[in-house]
Amino acid sequence: MPLNVVLFEPEIPQNTGNIARTCVITNSILHIIGPTGFSLDEKHVKRAGLDYWDLLDLRYYDHYEAFLVANPNAKVYYCETRTQTVYSDVDFPENCYIMFGKETTGITKSILEANPDNCIRIPMFQHEKARSLNLSNTVAIVVYEVLRQWNYPGMV
Amino acid sequence: MPLNVVLFEPEIPQNTGNIARTCVITNSILHIIGPTGFSLDEKHVKRAGLDYWDLLDLRYYDHYEAFLVANPNAKVYYCETRTQTVYSDVDFPENCYIMFGKETTGITKSILEANPDNCIRIPMFQHEKARSLNLSNTVAIVVYEVLRQWNYPGMV
Repeated sequence: MPLNVVLFEPEIPQNTGNIARTCVITNSILHIIGPTGFSLDEKHVKRAGLDYWDLLDLRYYDHYEAFLVANPNAKVYYCETRTQTVYSDVDFPENCYIMFGKETTGITKSILEANPDNCIRIPMFQHEKARSLNLSNTVAIVVYEVLRQWNYPGMV
Repeated sequence: MPLNVVLFEPEIPQNTGNIARTCVITNSILHIIGPTGFSLDEKHVKRAGLDYWDLLDLRYYDHYEAFLVANPNAKVYYCETRTQTVYSDVDFPENCYIMFGKETTGITKSILEANPDNCIRIPMFQHEKARSLNLSNTVAIVVYEVLRQWNYPGMV
């Protein structure tokens, strides 16, 4: 019952590299929806992901529609900052997908509006000057909450 | 009941910057035990932590003994890779401290051996070639498990 991590148009290669590392270490599948802000072959990604890129189950899609066509029955949750449901209040089903938006603007509004019941957020302390969590930290937090609920399958 | 994040001799400024961001967003106190692999004033830290460094409740100690003297009644948990207790099986008490080791070698062995009952680990899938999680991701995962148990105090 692998977990599926979906990055929507990621922009910063170091973040994607760290997320790839988290996916390898949790045996999660990484889906990347393009366009990305960098080439997936670029040495930036290899440098950030290092030994991990070749261990990764990576699936790339040119755009969101291609992701939908290739994953027709996917149970997808959408992580964003403006929604009611706290991520740890959800009972995540087997083989589910968690989508994370691009660093600057998140997931496209039309996608969120089409899936209001599956949007989740991470609680944060509100500061006037502070933005949200780093993207790779956001992914790590949600991934490990799902794995905690699943009792860390296959992990030691 | 703030959470206390303790970094033991951190080496990579980008990691400390991201951890500072997580601390600001969760209203956690960041304790740094030196020596660090970089100057805390360096532009690397400011670049990684950006707007966050000045919002941070940061406490610096020249060495581990200074940390102990300044925090005499601290309930400290030590995050490492080789121990039995899974982090999410612990009931974290109010005002507790979670210590994370340096990127290359973790927390000094003598400290771990002096505190065997308070060592915790994050489950991982074992790969021959893969190391552990990125340090800032490790901190984010444990911090949010503690905050989940505390029902995200003061956060929205």
